[in-house]
Amino acid sequence: MKVALGLSYDGAQFCGWQSQPSLCGVQDALEGAIAAIAQHPVRVHAAGRTDTGVHALGQVVHFETDVDRPLSAWVRGVNANLPETVRVEWAHLVDEDFHARFSAFSRSYQYLLYNAPVASALMANKAGWFHLPLDFSAMQEGASYLIGEHDFSAFRAAECQAKSPIKTMSRAEVRQCGNMFVFDFEASAFLHHMVRNLVGTLVYIGKGTQPAGWVDELLQMKDRKLAAPTFSPDGLYFRGPVYESHWNLPALDDDFLDGALL
Amino acid sequence: MKVALGLSYDGAQFCGWQSQPSLCGVQDALEGAIAAIAQHPVRVHAAGRTDTGVHALGQVVHFETDVDRPLSAWVRGVNANLPETVRVEWAHLVDEDFHARFSAFSRSYQYLLYNAPVASALMANKAGWFHLPLDFSAMQEGASYLIGEHDFSAFRAAECQAKSPIKTMSRAEVRQCGNMFVFDFEASAFLHHMVRNLVGTLVYIGKGTQPAGWVDELLQMKDRKLAAPTFSPDGLYFRGPVYESHWNLPALDDDFLDGALL
Repeated sequence: MKVALGLSYDGAQFCGWQSQPSLCGVQDALEGAIAAIAQHPVRVHAAGRTDTGVHALGQVVHFETDVDRPLSAWVRGVNANLPETVRVEWAHLVDEDFHARFSAFSRSYQYLLYNAPVASALMANKAGWFHLPLDFSAMQEGASYLIGEHDFSAFRAAECQAKSPIKTMSRAEVRQCGNMFVFDFEASAFLHHMVRNLVGTLVYIGKGTQPAGWVDELLQMKDRKLAAPTFSPDGLYFRGPVYESHWNLPALDDDFLDGALL
Repeated sequence: MKVALGLSYDGAQFCGWQSQPSLCGVQDALEGAIAAIAQHPVRVHAAGRTDTGVHALGQVVHFETDVDRPLSAWVRGVNANLPETVRVEWAHLVDEDFHARFSAFSRSYQYLLYNAPVASALMANKAGWFHLPLDFSAMQEGASYLIGEHDFSAFRAAECQAKSPIKTMSRAEVRQCGNMFVFDFEASAFLHHMVRNLVGTLVYIGKGTQPAGWVDELLQMKDRKLAAPTFSPDGLYFRGPVYESHWNLPALDDDFLDGALL
């Protein structure tokens, strides 16, 4: 049978999602914890890979097993074998043709940027930081150019393995909550480093180095070298994949600010 | 001259505020970082000591020095010598008769309690956790009995060294923000473990083990053994001391939810 799990993790202590020979990936911790309950080796497939230091609020994985366990064993039992910075939030049985990655029709990311002269001790590793004042409405306007289908080559890391740089962005918003700017992006798929490159570019606009329309120019030019540097992984959260409702999986959690964290 | 610093820290990696031979205290990190700028050994005096794992949003310390440095050196220079989980937020010159501890006329603490079936991966070490539903209005009512001058012996740790268990509580509130309960306490002074003991007792009320009026009973009985166990240090934040305005020091920051963190 096939089991899907929803999980959240703090990426600061991991070398990213993917399994590594040194077992420093979130995947390594999760596969070990599931195997302890299943009593057989398990390979999990994730909706999205996250880089070193990147967090997840609603990562979804699936795995196959022949052993019959109550769903609570895949939550509480697996959690008992995980470090406290990784938590399984839910477990569901899924159809054989479900795939955590390929069944998702869009993905959602959130970026937290702490904007104050002194960095935040309590959000160390959990938020990006920029020390100079940022122009909120310029960043909002810049983000608005991202909506729709575009060639995102200007925001694509050199090592990106995606077949096409053309993606459809359905949400690109900036909010301000006290000293924190919150960036929300939802798209059909994301290129490697795309969110961090977008945040870097919006910060250039926020600090006045470039006008809001620069985002539109960069989309047209399709040249990564023209855009701003990649921003820190500290503030990046994979909110999770979005599936069609017939899979009967829980919807994306409330976001970091409104519920999943607080 | 005398310098006052405001600082925030994540207590998870420290053995509490106080200096230890093994140098695991926040005070050890701070004194080392100040000494690197002052070029002489420095002893700091804090408004309040925090236990292992307890955080601070607006701790205040003072120290004496003969060296003349711009105030920015006591902020940015000291921060450059601190781990990123400790940040100096501001520095001010203060009168010779200011004392970070003795000049404070009240102290403010906040406790974050995450209330959900599964603990929070992203708030690991940053919030207490309780897995069963809690009755918000019962906890609010229970907290209301704390306001005013009371003998807080029922909430005092055995090792507490305070001269008197009688303190005046000016604020005792519970708020609910998504899955998080936020407890705010302000009092003339706090006994050892007092906030964690109060939170443990309010959780007993929230889960229905005791009625709200139990808080009043415990205050009357003055017996620590009758109250609930001490709650985890993970969710406890020292918001900071309150000074009279003539000292010209920054007021308490916005709280954890509204600004200092987010």
